Amino acid sequence: MDNKKIDERIKHPQLRKSVTSARDAASWIKDGMTLGLSGFTRAGDVKAVPMALVERAGTEKFKVNVYTGASLGSDIDKLFAEAGIIHKRLPFQADRTMRKKMNEGELLFVDQHLSHTAEFVRGDVIEPIDYAILEAVSITEDGMLIPTTSIGNSSIFAEKAESIIIEINMAQSPLLEGIHDIYCAGKQGERSPIPLIKTDDRIGTKGIPIDLNKVKGIVFTNQSDSPSTIVSPDEETKQMANHLLAFFRSEIEAGRLTEQLAPLQSGIGSIANAVLHGLIESEFEDLEVYSEVLQDAVFDLIDAGKVNVASCCSITLSEEKMKQIFQSFEKYRDKLIMRPQEISNHPEIIRRLGLISINTALEFDIYGNVNSTHVSGTKMMNGIGGSGDFARNARLAVFVTKSTAKNGDISSIVPFASHVDHTEHDVDVVVTEQGYADLRGLAPRERVPMIIENCAHPMYREQLWDYYSQALERGGQTPHILEKALSWHTNFATYGTMLEKVKS
Amino acid sequence: MDNKKIDERIKHPQLRKSVTSARDAASWIKDGMTLGLSGFTRAGDVKAVPMALVERAGTEKFKVNVYTGASLGSDIDKLFAEAGIIHKRLPFQADRTMRKKMNEGELLFVDQHLSHTAEFVRGDVIEPIDYAILEAVSITEDGMLIPTTSIGNSSIFAEKAESIIIEINMAQSPLLEGIHDIYCAGKQGERSPIPLIKTDDRIGTKGIPIDLNKVKGIVFTNQSDSPSTIVSPDEETKQMANHLLAFFRSEIEAGRLTEQLAPLQSGIGSIANAVLHGLIESEFEDLEVYSEVLQDAVFDLIDAGKVNVASCCSITLSEEKMKQIFQSFEKYRDKLIMRPQEISNHPEIIRRLGLISINTALEFDIYGNVNSTHVSGTKMMNGIGGSGDFARNARLAVFVTKSTAKNGDISSIVPFASHVDHTEHDVDVVVTEQGYADLRGLAPRERVPMIIENCAHPMYREQLWDYYSQALERGGQTPHILEKALSWHTNFATYGTMLEKVKS
Repeated sequence: MDNKKIDERIKHPQLRKSVTSARDAASWIKDGMTLGLSGFTRAGDVKAVPMALVERAGTEKFKVNVYTGASLGSDIDKLFAEAGIIHKRLPFQADRTMRKKMNEGELLFVDQHLSHTAEFVRGDVIEPIDYAILEAVSITEDGMLIPTTSIGNSSIFAEKAESIIIEINMAQSPLLEGIHDIYCAGKQGERSPIPLIKTDDRIGTKGIPIDLNKVKGIVFTNQSDSPSTIVSPDEETKQMANHLLAFFRSEIEAGRLTEQLAPLQSGIGSIANAVLHGLIESEFEDLEVYSEVLQDAVFDLIDAGKVNVASCCSITLSEEKMKQIFQSFEKYRDKLIMRPQEISNHPEIIRRLGLISINTALEFDIYGNVNSTHVSGTKMMNGIGGSGDFARNARLAVFVTKSTAKNGDISSIVPFASHVDHTEHDVDVVVTEQGYADLRGLAPRERVPMIIENCAHPMYREQLWDYYSQALERGGQTPHILEKALSWHTNFATYGTMLEKVKS
Repeated sequence: MDNKKIDERIKHPQLRKSVTSARDAASWIKDGMTLGLSGFTRAGDVKAVPMALVERAGTEKFKVNVYTGASLGSDIDKLFAEAGIIHKRLPFQADRTMRKKMNEGELLFVDQHLSHTAEFVRGDVIEPIDYAILEAVSITEDGMLIPTTSIGNSSIFAEKAESIIIEINMAQSPLLEGIHDIYCAGKQGERSPIPLIKTDDRIGTKGIPIDLNKVKGIVFTNQSDSPSTIVSPDEETKQMANHLLAFFRSEIEAGRLTEQLAPLQSGIGSIANAVLHGLIESEFEDLEVYSEVLQDAVFDLIDAGKVNVASCCSITLSEEKMKQIFQSFEKYRDKLIMRPQEISNHPEIIRRLGLISINTALEFDIYGNVNSTHVSGTKMMNGIGGSGDFARNARLAVFVTKSTAKNGDISSIVPFASHVDHTEHDVDVVVTEQGYADLRGLAPRERVPMIIENCAHPMYREQLWDYYSQALERGGQTPHILEKALSWHTNFATYGTMLEKVKS
């Protein structure tokens, strides 16, 4: 790294002497330490030091706790898991190998609401952080760290960590400087109202203020974020988008929404992306996005002139989109604001702005309880992420899923959710490719017919009705046949299908 | 009612002509209408018009929807249910007869977070309110309604209802004037931060502003609130209180709390009351209460000089306590603030103040999922009330329950919660008479030993371990044997006990 580049990216002179190699930085990390890494949904993660740490595992036995914003890219979670160096991981991950190790009990995963981690760290509730390792575009003259494509928990990690290692990533656009808005909520019991009342309000600083004495090393890297793994909209996700648009239209007709809708939040993944994508051809205009992650669809909506402003805590794009967006980033800059995840996911703001929150379900039951995390109630998929932060406080908590999985052998609509991440009290609208069910203000017995008829796949409807009518004979606010409640899941485990006819 | 008394209580001259009888007022209510009644946990409920409405049911067939703050006193929910005049009831009730009818499917009950009802009413999401029927101490010169011993949803009911009927209750102390603080959150997307940053901040008006043209009638009544039905602390609730105090002490030792603790919220009922009662003999001082309902224990704590200020949305006392408190209400007035339930239970405030929230569980499972509402997953007990508002946003979400029920035939700690109102993501600490388990920052597999060893009753521990070790063989983030997950509940239904040894 030549001095000119160092000086350009590290504007605070005192810090220039801290430049070091990833391997050296990784060598400071000891067995039993806790690390706070930047990174949220594959964006803005540190890349070099974690890799060097994995390398060390080849010759040395150690374990660390790893806290992040959300999932990491660059296969880091995979490599961490394979190297066996993780004791505890939180608050979210989305890697197949790590998931396998978690489910085998080889590493501990704490599945946390994404807005909660900062509170736990600030309140000294969980293991304190030895090293915050944070990706940056640059460090300003006054010693502020300018994050890259995500903020995640970086600001609270920087504040609370014993020491800080910074990765300055030359592959991240310097144009990112200026889109961040760092606001610290402060301690519970001592904090003021968060002064954000519109999606595009700026309430903080453009970078993360850091204690320069804590900076132990600065590593230069040059590696793009991992592209997102979303797949393009398909026929079924298009149908889901259409159902959601139909619901929005009925809300407008009822006078509860206007054509500007309300600030939109959409979860990570292909389905949520596809559903947002459906707005492009719609009549809705002057939209705002207040979300945790911006995926491809939001930029398509900006290009289509549909979205005026998008607040986020990370930008996670497909390979093609990433190239396109960062080649003409000037075009998008003034429409984007990036916030710490504590603020993007804060109940205070979500409730105040009255978001429309769209998240993906793994399954939901005939009463509207949603499982977002556990396959068959036991095996972790990714984690709850921000879905609980949003659903619990939004104006409209919408959950979307295809009505079946595994070629129809799994019904996403079941008699009894095998794990509950979002309770019947929190779920407003459920959508599948079959249709939508608006559950607001409905008693459990009113919900069932709507969910079965509007959302379940036709091939499972009779079976759901059978369960419900037997349950009704036993009565109750929420009728169930407890000995059969989880039989759909056990049937799938035994016979490879939830479908009675095939099974017998 | 003599004119002097009318003039004293109705200070706005225009309204004096609206005085009428309960029977007349009740006659205006038509089949299919929706009523918004004052009343929260038996306090401040309207008494005369509902009774007159029940009377009408003797000679006439009709049904109405009834929205309230929370549960009603004066057996009104019982009489409503017996008369068969309720189509839909929300957001909470606590009456044995009504519960039976709900569970038999004879009336629809929507079990709502108590902070959500106001949003649903304001947003025109649920059936609009034809008549708001609200208890008051008086009406001011400038046409504000001064509520009595609860505010509940009265302010939003008054704002949104087509018409208003007021019951001025001469039995309620005029000294209540001045303790209320009415603040309207405003529409989502248009609202400002709620400017409450300390428990005792006053941010609103002393009464509910009403549109005088909507007032159709004013009925005078003279009937005390129904006393609460709580029972005195017993040996087991004392043990629970001691475990909670031990937990608080360990938090102080860890530097996470001071001896002032943090503003306390405690749910309705004997157990929560007993647990708060345990603070009287403790070393903790200068306490604050920010809760929905104040029960006897809070006044004992004020008397003991332990509590400096208590914010609430209702005051629900035992017969004896009610007499004592209202005979010397001057002593308590400046320590009390009563707020609409949307504010007492608002996620923004709960998170900002960092409440310690203590609520009662019906059962919880070995991973910390809490059921607060459904007996054996089907039969509604009372409702979720405010427990979700608080637990989801508090600094510390504590759930308390006795480790067994029905003389030991039911274990409150089960392999799999038969209904989930508070997910594993939201539950921080569980307490029984056996001890407490601090679940914060723990992965599911770390939670199990703590919950079994610290909280389960010794006679159920082996059985819980058996389940868990079998489940462990199958693996998973949250190991389960799905075909046995609900067997404890089905065993209870079949054999009258969850205990394997007795059963076989």
